[in-house]
Amino acid sequence: MIYLDHAATTPLDGEVLRAMMPYLTDVFGNPSSQHSAGRAAANAVTAARDSIAHIVGVPAESIYFTAGGTEAANTALKGVCTSYRDRGRHIVLSAIEHPALIESARDMCNYGWELTLVNPDDKGIISPDAIKRAMRPDTVFVGVMAANNEVGTIQPIAAIYSQVKANGAFFFCDCVQTAGVLPFSDFPADGIGFAAHKFYGPKGVGVLHIRRGVKFARLISGGNQERGLRAGTTYVAGAVGCACALERAYAAAEHNNKKVAALRDGFVSGVLSEISGVRLNGDNVRRLPSNANLSFDGCDGEQIVFGLDLAGIAASTGSACSSGAVTLSHVLAAMGLEEDRVKSAVRFTFGRDNSEEEVSAAVNCLKEVVGRIRKSRS
Amino acid sequence: MIYLDHAATTPLDGEVLRAMMPYLTDVFGNPSSQHSAGRAAANAVTAARDSIAHIVGVPAESIYFTAGGTEAANTALKGVCTSYRDRGRHIVLSAIEHPALIESARDMCNYGWELTLVNPDDKGIISPDAIKRAMRPDTVFVGVMAANNEVGTIQPIAAIYSQVKANGAFFFCDCVQTAGVLPFSDFPADGIGFAAHKFYGPKGVGVLHIRRGVKFARLISGGNQERGLRAGTTYVAGAVGCACALERAYAAAEHNNKKVAALRDGFVSGVLSEISGVRLNGDNVRRLPSNANLSFDGCDGEQIVFGLDLAGIAASTGSACSSGAVTLSHVLAAMGLEEDRVKSAVRFTFGRDNSEEEVSAAVNCLKEVVGRIRKSRS
Repeated sequence: MIYLDHAATTPLDGEVLRAMMPYLTDVFGNPSSQHSAGRAAANAVTAARDSIAHIVGVPAESIYFTAGGTEAANTALKGVCTSYRDRGRHIVLSAIEHPALIESARDMCNYGWELTLVNPDDKGIISPDAIKRAMRPDTVFVGVMAANNEVGTIQPIAAIYSQVKANGAFFFCDCVQTAGVLPFSDFPADGIGFAAHKFYGPKGVGVLHIRRGVKFARLISGGNQERGLRAGTTYVAGAVGCACALERAYAAAEHNNKKVAALRDGFVSGVLSEISGVRLNGDNVRRLPSNANLSFDGCDGEQIVFGLDLAGIAASTGSACSSGAVTLSHVLAAMGLEEDRVKSAVRFTFGRDNSEEEVSAAVNCLKEVVGRIRKSRS
Repeated sequence: MIYLDHAATTPLDGEVLRAMMPYLTDVFGNPSSQHSAGRAAANAVTAARDSIAHIVGVPAESIYFTAGGTEAANTALKGVCTSYRDRGRHIVLSAIEHPALIESARDMCNYGWELTLVNPDDKGIISPDAIKRAMRPDTVFVGVMAANNEVGTIQPIAAIYSQVKANGAFFFCDCVQTAGVLPFSDFPADGIGFAAHKFYGPKGVGVLHIRRGVKFARLISGGNQERGLRAGTTYVAGAVGCACALERAYAAAEHNNKKVAALRDGFVSGVLSEISGVRLNGDNVRRLPSNANLSFDGCDGEQIVFGLDLAGIAASTGSACSSGAVTLSHVLAAMGLEEDRVKSAVRFTFGRDNSEEEVSAAVNCLKEVVGRIRKSRS
């Protein structure tokens, strides 16, 4: 298999699994227990939290372990909005946020909240001015992702954050696609969230950071875990794996980003030279190193993904989280692309274990698949 | 270490870890992805769901994977109450429920809901009549756990469920302590929840069952996972491990329950014959095979746990989830036990890997520790 869907999930790093193994075997205590078996587990969670906090550049007390990026986004949006509902009931999100944030906001709309979605430009970039214009005196929560999961566009978060701070609202930055790739300092925010399985860590664990001093109502109530703000027995091996994966990702980020971008660039130029009627979606410069999102004139994206899959190549029409739904990409639609271009888009996301040979094979296979689809339609 | 805290968590079964390993290595796809890597992961999740549904005795479409028992309880209570709020805003729980359910209900009380807590008798048993008396025409949700996590009391759930059905409310049964031990058919309900790490499965994964046809508002919004009712990338290895652990637990339940009960009985009779001023809390007959909850006159439970820990024996003063809090056990208090008895209680919960030698060593150590504490106080 040639795996070109790293934005959906990544394989678990063997070294990360090795770091997790003690907590899947001997060190099995409940970190909330008062005895040494519990303390051994609690110490591992503390060390993992400290390491993540250090990398993110925030105090350890502002890091919460969750079951993933989606729970982190839900906790931030629902929790902050609920706690500050006396200030107002207005939410601003970019129109290209992940459903975890957009659907959370829609849930709040059932309770009298209003949601304003801010469209990006045709490259997928959210303008700080557009965010400024969307905010109102009663805006409580603003969310713009660090980089988009479908087209890889990196947002001008520092400038957006300045606007939000001037307004006084809470600013959340979904860092699911940039964690382990780009430094957190590029994305200043009052709260961030990310998921370990996007940077070669385990599935089932994510991180929420909420700046100290900001109140948020807990989403999951019960025991006193995570300072009473996220109940439930901690997934100890997951926390350890998340920290290890994040450390390893940043230690090699410069090298891997260059390598992955070169593979991606080779792929895009190969496709553009070998196949006619192809357009790159998103921004050329402000773009994740891993992402290529391409539209193929006269094709259906799903048919291409299906054809590639038969040949052992894994790509995607968009977010894995939306699959099963037959709706078109809300990201490409918000960018204002015409329907044909949206329908014919395929996302290729490269990873550190891909090779130039895989890129060449993928280009050749794609040429064959696209040619076949076009022929059958003509 | 002699581990006598199996109600807090259990070690991961080596065979379960082996079943999980492919999903921590080669089969790493996102189960929502449309390609073969995604389908391989999705197939594993489907098989795990089918297996669990078969064991629980419900349709697979009514099984939802969560991050644990706490999330399952939160989703059931908050989700069902929210969906049926037009019928009324009253919740009935036993006073000895886990904080996952009690705190969820308290959260709803911030939104105009009322909570009635039903006390057990002095053995920790909840009477179906008491539940009947507590229900009102506007009661939407009733929750009584299958067996209590602190004193191990098994509740008369079938009789309680009849009363709740007659009232028309939704009945949730927290099966965290009975899953893998006692058959689900003993605990009929409209919804149940449990966590894999209590039956030698992995941490970070739990199961929620909600009877088909019952609506519940999602707690975690986003992608279309779990039929749109619990968003977030599925912890595939966790789902597989949960199913494998549940299968293995029930395959050997009869044998293990006998063994564990014999160890527990040996421990209790050893303690009662070797140490004076000891009282067993909870019911003698309607009791989990693993549980012994004992109060030691003139002692502080925490001091006993601390003394045992120094000698390499892991026990607990109560729920691991409440540790960190200095409050007394809400379970023993609700049973109406006097404060001295509550303060001096220690929970010992046995497991299939404990031995008679460990039981003897624990009795001797406990005798020494209790003697020392009493001497220092006299």
